[in-house]
Amino acid sequence: MTLPLGPDELLSTTRSVRKRLDLDRPVPLDLVRESLEVALQAPSGGNSQGWHWMVVTDPGLRAGIGEHYARSFASYRRSSVYAGNAAGHSAERQAVQSRVATSADYLAEVMGRVPVHVIACIAAGEELPRGNQAGLWGSLLPAAWSFQIAARARGLGSAWTTLHLRYEKEIAALLGIPPHVRQGVLLPTAYYTGETFKPAKREPLDQVLHLDRW
Amino acid sequence: MTLPLGPDELLSTTRSVRKRLDLDRPVPLDLVRESLEVALQAPSGGNSQGWHWMVVTDPGLRAGIGEHYARSFASYRRSSVYAGNAAGHSAERQAVQSRVATSADYLAEVMGRVPVHVIACIAAGEELPRGNQAGLWGSLLPAAWSFQIAARARGLGSAWTTLHLRYEKEIAALLGIPPHVRQGVLLPTAYYTGETFKPAKREPLDQVLHLDRW
Repeated sequence: MTLPLGPDELLSTTRSVRKRLDLDRPVPLDLVRESLEVALQAPSGGNSQGWHWMVVTDPGLRAGIGEHYARSFASYRRSSVYAGNAAGHSAERQAVQSRVATSADYLAEVMGRVPVHVIACIAAGEELPRGNQAGLWGSLLPAAWSFQIAARARGLGSAWTTLHLRYEKEIAALLGIPPHVRQGVLLPTAYYTGETFKPAKREPLDQVLHLDRW
Repeated sequence: MTLPLGPDELLSTTRSVRKRLDLDRPVPLDLVRESLEVALQAPSGGNSQGWHWMVVTDPGLRAGIGEHYARSFASYRRSSVYAGNAAGHSAERQAVQSRVATSADYLAEVMGRVPVHVIACIAAGEELPRGNQAGLWGSLLPAAWSFQIAARARGLGSAWTTLHLRYEKEIAALLGIPPHVRQGVLLPTAYYTGETFKPAKREPLDQVLHLDRW
């Protein structure tokens, strides 16, 4: 059963859930499977369906992923990219960025204890294409986002993160992912606490919309 | 107003629309704007919101994009990647691939006449990251997929394609997209004909699901 959410509400309330992930409530694997069944309905280039889905519930493996994640997050936290996320914005946006940062700190602390880790992967070859890889990732990432949306409709929250990719090889070794299969996103998944979600505050569309010409 | 589609139906019937794009019916810009407003609710790395949305309705510009697209599609049609999409599958899957191919041929023919071209872009720097670019594209492609889903709920069909990227620079020059902004996906968008869509036939989940270890 899914929650009775209309299209816009569904898409606007599938938020990045970090602090509201319920670390103690077990997640039935069936809900993850159902969400993945829906995810497989997303498009892929030439209908290639080259995706693979790692679903990790083993506590030791999750702890291992969590350690790599925390180490990568610590580097990110010290980086200029991180500082840039907060800089040069309006006071209102800075307040948002500050909340995102606190929430991300928390996720890094608890990652290993989130009940389910879903890692979306794609058969891509050991050497990724040079230049623009949007073609490759466009055959996986829509499905990963569909997973999050379908999960949200089942009362499950998740957060999109790629910080684990700093240790992509180590995590591949931990889980036995073969070298030609590359990881696209880590989705820690759990029941969310609280009733529902509000849409996010975003910068206005007209700042990023270009009609006919830039 | 959106169609009364539940979560799973919405995500399972947002199909790649090519033959059923209505080339003759004008698309109100408001529907595109509404769909983009919803798209902006998708996550982006560190809440960076670094996306840009080119919405092209000018007939001359669409024709120009269509010419680049047709040229790229012709190369793709002759390539080993294309042949690989059909090879080594069950008879049932080969029949699906054959239908996808016919549909893609048609899109290449009419691309320039699809009423709206939406190109999802991201501020990424002139030199894209070496190695795994999933972090970059994960900050754009979920929003692009949300756009398609939100559009579908408004009676608009679209198709995800990246074949235009072979001529990314030429299309950037045509539209005035600056060099640090990179294109992630082209979404030709129009009203769809017919009433609704059926979910797609996909390979079984258990072929691509790995529990705990590969």
